[in-house]
Amino acid sequence: MKMLINVPETVVTDALRGMAVAHPELTVDVEGRVVVRRDAPVAGKVGLVSGGGSGHEPLHAGFVGAGMLDAACPGEVFTSPVPDQMVRAAAAVDSGKGVLFIVKNYTGDVLNFNMAAELAEDEGIRIASVLVNDDVAVTDSLYTAGRRGTGATLFVEKIAGAAAEEGAPLERVEALARRVNESSRSFGVALAACTTPAKGSPTFDLPAGELELGVGIHGEPGRERRAMMTSGEIADYAVDAVLSDLRPTGPVLALVNGAGGTPLLELYGFTAEVHRVLRERGVPVARTLVGNYVTSLDMAGASVTLCQVDEELLRLWDAPVETAGLRWGR
Amino acid sequence: MKMLINVPETVVTDALRGMAVAHPELTVDVEGRVVVRRDAPVAGKVGLVSGGGSGHEPLHAGFVGAGMLDAACPGEVFTSPVPDQMVRAAAAVDSGKGVLFIVKNYTGDVLNFNMAAELAEDEGIRIASVLVNDDVAVTDSLYTAGRRGTGATLFVEKIAGAAAEEGAPLERVEALARRVNESSRSFGVALAACTTPAKGSPTFDLPAGELELGVGIHGEPGRERRAMMTSGEIADYAVDAVLSDLRPTGPVLALVNGAGGTPLLELYGFTAEVHRVLRERGVPVARTLVGNYVTSLDMAGASVTLCQVDEELLRLWDAPVETAGLRWGR
Repeated sequence: MKMLINVPETVVTDALRGMAVAHPELTVDVEGRVVVRRDAPVAGKVGLVSGGGSGHEPLHAGFVGAGMLDAACPGEVFTSPVPDQMVRAAAAVDSGKGVLFIVKNYTGDVLNFNMAAELAEDEGIRIASVLVNDDVAVTDSLYTAGRRGTGATLFVEKIAGAAAEEGAPLERVEALARRVNESSRSFGVALAACTTPAKGSPTFDLPAGELELGVGIHGEPGRERRAMMTSGEIADYAVDAVLSDLRPTGPVLALVNGAGGTPLLELYGFTAEVHRVLRERGVPVARTLVGNYVTSLDMAGASVTLCQVDEELLRLWDAPVETAGLRWGR
Repeated sequence: MKMLINVPETVVTDALRGMAVAHPELTVDVEGRVVVRRDAPVAGKVGLVSGGGSGHEPLHAGFVGAGMLDAACPGEVFTSPVPDQMVRAAAAVDSGKGVLFIVKNYTGDVLNFNMAAELAEDEGIRIASVLVNDDVAVTDSLYTAGRRGTGATLFVEKIAGAAAEEGAPLERVEALARRVNESSRSFGVALAACTTPAKGSPTFDLPAGELELGVGIHGEPGRERRAMMTSGEIADYAVDAVLSDLRPTGPVLALVNGAGGTPLLELYGFTAEVHRVLRERGVPVARTLVGNYVTSLDMAGASVTLCQVDEELLRLWDAPVETAGLRWGR
C-alpha cells in the first residue's frame, strides 16, 4: 500500500508541522503534540479540550478555533493520546473558568483523560468531562466498553464550543455537551477497509462484494456483513438503526459523514437517500452537513449521525465557527 | 469495485438531489443539471459560471455562493456538460452586467462553452470567457490541446468571484481571472488510479510500488513513472516542476490539494514538505489551503498549485466567501 508519507514513524508529527505552516491562527506544539488556539487562554471563557487517535482528520485538531475547541491532543494513528498531552492542553487554555474534556468512548481515551483530569486538578485547574457514545451499531466493541463515540463528537464540540464562546460557565457548557450527546445517535458502514501507516495493509478483511454494516471508525466489526447494497438500501438500514434508538420527537441535525475514501459525489447521492428515508419516517431535518469530518484514513464508506435539536441547540449550531475543518459566519 | 451509489446512470442526478436538500441556499435544477445561487441574478453584479465533468467535487457546484460562482454546470463523470446547461446557467445569473465563463482547458469543455457563449449572446447576454490551463506536467494530453486546467480553477473562481461580488465590471473580472490563471501553475501525482462508476474498474493501470508524476485530474498520463517516493521527495519534484515554469518573484498562494483518496493526515504531512521546499527556494507563502478541493473521485495522490499574488489578489483571496466547499468570513 503506497502512502504520501516519509516514514510511518513520523506521520503524526509531519502532519502537525503541516498544520503549523498552513494555519498561523493555531499554536502547534509539534513535539508535545498539542494544537491550541493562538489566542488561548481566552479571558472569561471555559476551555474545551478534545483529542484521540490520529487518522480521523479533520477531527479533532481541525476543529480548534473560535467557536469550537480551544485545544486538541492527537495520539498516534488509532491510539489514544497520553495524559501529559491533555494536561498541557488544559493548562494552555484555562482562563480560570475551568476546562471541559470531550472524550470519545474508547477504553484508552477514557483512562487517559481520567488520569489527566486528576493531574490537572492537582495543578488547580477545574475539569469537567463528557463522554461521547453515540454509535448504535454494537453495545461493546474492540477498544470499547459500551457504545463507541463517533460522529456526534462534531455536534458536541460545535454546540458546546458555541456556548463557551458566549461566556457560559463550565456547568452549563458541560450540561449542554451531555445533552447533545444524549440527543445524538450514529451508524456507519464500510465498503472497503482502511490501511494504517504502521501496518501497511488493510486493518480488516472485507470480501469483494460485501459491506460491513455498523463498522467502527477504526474498522471495528459492526452488526453484520451483507452482499453489497444500493445507496438507497444502505440509507434505509442506517437511518432506521439510528431512529429506532433515538426516536426523535422533533427536528434533527443530520451529518452525512464520509469515511475518507468515498468521493463527495457519492456522499451527496447518499445524502439524497438519507433525506428520503427521514421524510418517509416523518422526521424533519433542520440542517444537513455533508463531507469528510470524522474519517477513518482511506476507508470507503459513510456514516449518518442525527441529533435532535430544540431552538437553543439550533441557535448554537448556527453560531459562527472558525476552524480549519468547519467554518461559517452566519 | 464497490460504490455508495444506486446505479451508475443516476450518480450525477442523485448527487444533485443531495445538494438540493443539504443546501437550501442553492437552487438546484436536477433534471437540467444547473446549480445556481438562490439570490441570482444579483442586481448590478457580473455573473460567474463554470462547469465541467463531475467527479472533481467540491469543484464546481461546491463553489457556488456569495463571493465565488453564481452557477455551475455538472456534466456526467469526467465528461463535459452540454451547451444547453451553460446557456441556462448564464440566463439564470445575468443581471444585465454580463457573464464570465470559467473554462478548464479540455477539448470538450472548450467546444461546448464556446458554443454556449454564441447561443447566450444570441439571447442578448454579454459573455466573456477565460481558459484555465495551469498544469505544467505535459503540453498536450488526452482530451486536451495545450495544458490541462486543474487546481488554479479554484484560485480563478475565488478571486474573480470576490471582484464580481464587489461590483467590478465584466472587463475587469475577466482581466483578473486571466491574470490569476497566468500567475498560477500546478503539478499532480497519483499513487493509485480512480474508478469511475460507469467503468467500475481503475481508469488506468499503476503497478504496485510506482507512482505517476504529473498525472491529470482524470488520470491522464503525466511525465513519468517512478518507484514510490517519500512525501519529501514528491514535494521536491512537484514544487520544482511548478517553480521552474512559474518563476515567482513574490509571495504565493499555495493549494495543497488532495486527489480524493488520500487521507487529510497525509496531506498535512505533505504540506509541511511543500513549505520546506518553498522555504529552501526562497519563495514566501502568503496563504496555504489544504484539503480535497479539485478531486478525481477516489484517486490517491495530491497536487500543488501556486499562484503569485500582489496585494490586490491577496485582498480578493481573503474576501468573504460562502459556498458549500469553501467558506470564510474574515
